[in-house]
Amino acid sequence: MTTTQPADLPFAPAASLTLVEQLAARYTERIAQRLLAPGARLPSVRECARRHAVSPSTVVGAYDLLQARGLVQARPQRGFFVREHPGPEPGGARAASGAHRTAPAATPRPAPVDATALIRSMFQAQGGLPAPGMGTLPEAWLDAPLLQRALRRVCAAPAAWLRYGEPAGDARLRAALAQRLADIGIAAAPGQIVTTVGATHALDLVSRTLLQPGDAVLVDEPGWAVEYARLTRAGMRLLPVPRGSTYGSQADGGPDLVVMEALLKAHRPRLYVTVSVLHNPTGASLTPAAAHQVLRLAEAHDLTIVEDDSYAWLAPPHAPRLAQLDGLRRTVYVSGFSKILVPQWRVGFVAAAPALAERLIDTKLVGTLSTPGPLEQAVALCLEQGSLRRHAERVLAQLDAARARTVRLARDAGCRFVAPPAGLFGWVDVGTDTEALAQALLDEGWLTAPGTLFHATPRPTTLMRVNFATAQDARFWRRLRQLVEGTRRHS
Amino acid sequence: MTTTQPADLPFAPAASLTLVEQLAARYTERIAQRLLAPGARLPSVRECARRHAVSPSTVVGAYDLLQARGLVQARPQRGFFVREHPGPEPGGARAASGAHRTAPAATPRPAPVDATALIRSMFQAQGGLPAPGMGTLPEAWLDAPLLQRALRRVCAAPAAWLRYGEPAGDARLRAALAQRLADIGIAAAPGQIVTTVGATHALDLVSRTLLQPGDAVLVDEPGWAVEYARLTRAGMRLLPVPRGSTYGSQADGGPDLVVMEALLKAHRPRLYVTVSVLHNPTGASLTPAAAHQVLRLAEAHDLTIVEDDSYAWLAPPHAPRLAQLDGLRRTVYVSGFSKILVPQWRVGFVAAAPALAERLIDTKLVGTLSTPGPLEQAVALCLEQGSLRRHAERVLAQLDAARARTVRLARDAGCRFVAPPAGLFGWVDVGTDTEALAQALLDEGWLTAPGTLFHATPRPTTLMRVNFATAQDARFWRRLRQLVEGTRRHS
Repeated sequence: MTTTQPADLPFAPAASLTLVEQLAARYTERIAQRLLAPGARLPSVRECARRHAVSPSTVVGAYDLLQARGLVQARPQRGFFVREHPGPEPGGARAASGAHRTAPAATPRPAPVDATALIRSMFQAQGGLPAPGMGTLPEAWLDAPLLQRALRRVCAAPAAWLRYGEPAGDARLRAALAQRLADIGIAAAPGQIVTTVGATHALDLVSRTLLQPGDAVLVDEPGWAVEYARLTRAGMRLLPVPRGSTYGSQADGGPDLVVMEALLKAHRPRLYVTVSVLHNPTGASLTPAAAHQVLRLAEAHDLTIVEDDSYAWLAPPHAPRLAQLDGLRRTVYVSGFSKILVPQWRVGFVAAAPALAERLIDTKLVGTLSTPGPLEQAVALCLEQGSLRRHAERVLAQLDAARARTVRLARDAGCRFVAPPAGLFGWVDVGTDTEALAQALLDEGWLTAPGTLFHATPRPTTLMRVNFATAQDARFWRRLRQLVEGTRRHS
Repeated sequence: MTTTQPADLPFAPAASLTLVEQLAARYTERIAQRLLAPGARLPSVRECARRHAVSPSTVVGAYDLLQARGLVQARPQRGFFVREHPGPEPGGARAASGAHRTAPAATPRPAPVDATALIRSMFQAQGGLPAPGMGTLPEAWLDAPLLQRALRRVCAAPAAWLRYGEPAGDARLRAALAQRLADIGIAAAPGQIVTTVGATHALDLVSRTLLQPGDAVLVDEPGWAVEYARLTRAGMRLLPVPRGSTYGSQADGGPDLVVMEALLKAHRPRLYVTVSVLHNPTGASLTPAAAHQVLRLAEAHDLTIVEDDSYAWLAPPHAPRLAQLDGLRRTVYVSGFSKILVPQWRVGFVAAAPALAERLIDTKLVGTLSTPGPLEQAVALCLEQGSLRRHAERVLAQLDAARARTVRLARDAGCRFVAPPAGLFGWVDVGTDTEALAQALLDEGWLTAPGTLFHATPRPTTLMRVNFATAQDARFWRRLRQLVEGTRRHS
């Protein structure tokens, strides 16, 4: 099955390499692509030998080679770990691990960002088997002709390209977005909307505008690893609020309000970043009552809430948003088009109170000056003509069918959904540590998203996130079940 | 002439408004558009009356109106100032100035970013008279059909859009950029190149990757205000290095090496951000000898240099770059396409040592995930086919002619170039304070770039930046001369 995994292609068939070299090459590639992130532990020699069906001495030889190349370091009694700064060590493989520095010298590298490993691996999963851990819709579900038509029409009027775009973003797109927000019950004038390079950029603008290093920030846990990584790298203190039925006392999928209130009192955080509708990874949405309580707490503690509504188009229009209840007074609304229309155009936006919108524009200015006009204009066309809405309706029907099938397959494989299946993602308990399982599945070409990636502080967990659209292959669930049962027999 | 200035259009012809209301409306609009930034002082009552040909009592009435609307505040003995946070004051116009706070409450707003006033005003200058203070080529000089052809060709292959782009950026563009860099003597593999949302985003990635709040950073002075604003907002300490013949002991247009060395010893800055070729605003380029000395200093003090080569295509290919001499060891190279091909596509890039490039990709990931693919692919086409190179040759010929004409007009108007005219910008001494002059010219529809915007700490100066391409109108220089002579008579 190695041929289905692009990372292995250049190496596996190379008969001129010894087995040791082949195995080392495979791990070299995986480290280079961050499928094994800095700080990650390599499998034990015995486990690796079993997994790749080679002798333990072959594994020892391969790990020695990786160490000699400066890619991993051995820690007595603990095993082999991917180095933070790959590169030859001056004193050879056994030099003190703290001795290596690469130019240009600068700030110490932040803690390993495991999120980047997941994200980077998303770019590797193409062309192989469907990746049940992916964060987007399958390519086949998107409407390429619709995108072509829209961008071709934009090409007919290139005059606007010849100057910088408005700092707030394309005026036509902002008008269309104001209409879209009205459709889902959020009142926002075009002047309150700032376009961005995808929703990620919108979240980044908000945290750069409202936070300073050292500030405390409430985040959902489980939650989206890129958000944790960005805030941590910027020097914020993360305060995880348990989310969903597994963790908190709330059975409604919302944040644990008791914990939230305690954190508000103890740490006085400025900001709460949350996905209130079709939460990633649990798929849960706030009930109107929970939304009201969250806003009351925010009011009482002078908290600003960033509502990340990246999955907006996959939810029913009547799903209650915090921004709707609050009227964008102390909420900031973020969304984009990567999860429904087209990931690679990178079009997103943020809507906020007028005074805050002005500040967000200033932050945008110093970071990117403005955003790419042609793609914003093309998205505006898709919104204005209703073609995005019709596309979303088709996707929703497809997703409903895929979800039903995936839920059945997962349950047949002995997995348990810890939150009611909804939206794009399922949050599944497979009954064994999912990080080791993910490595084993990756060796066979299946990219999965182990639960540890969705925790502010990585921890062993038997949970994983499943993309309902890309996890419909019965072979995946059969193999997963075999591996899980194998683990149980070993333990 | 007010009809040529878009900012005035909605108000000037409104006969139903009183003179007081018309004048207040004009300033309201100007404040909203940040042509008057927070913290800026309004003209004195007498000066404003003279400028708009109204009575002093009309001005007093208008300023009172602005104060009642919460847009400006009066400071005894000092005049009227634009408020940091516009909005009604709870206790009316005369409430204590510290009492106002707007929700959502958050970090104190950073110091006024005058840069955003200049940038925002660049978006207002369209359609009116040519703006001698603009930072880009005139629209008519750009090649819209070339851009249309390239983007239409990209529309033929939409498959790639349906997934996230590679975090490093479009592979084809990075290959084309590696070739372009080789053409100007810089060796960089595609793997060392990371694409960005314009050069501004590239500079932002570098500072976010290498700096932490409180770090000291060397910057050119004069220099580009957006760079100052970004670094200041991120909590860095700016250490201005005098640049060009007016300020330092160097007559070659390079940084004052004596000051630079003293700052390196005293403050141990991590980074030096500099435009070495066709420096903004002076137009000066480093000599090979100066470049060598700068690199020696960097070596001795373990300094990383960010070389902003935004004007690369306007310079001769043999212009010496720091990155060329240094081989991207302790230099980081940044450039983009806004100044030669198309401002609104927002395509730029950074080239760095391999290990640093990896870190820049991680920073890019948490900030925007990836960059817009279609536009990167279209720029790659323009590079591959040589069409950008041929376009640049035509622009250079046009610019040479424009520069000759503008230099003659400026000198005839009594202005003096303090650096040899080169590239897109001239750095001109007009003999009177250019900030007041810029306000007066703006009232007549001419956008200029007063020298204070190019200083890390704004200060009165008689210098201004002139765009050779957009300052060819003899009427502008005539009017400037009249105003300058008027000022001299008044003083």
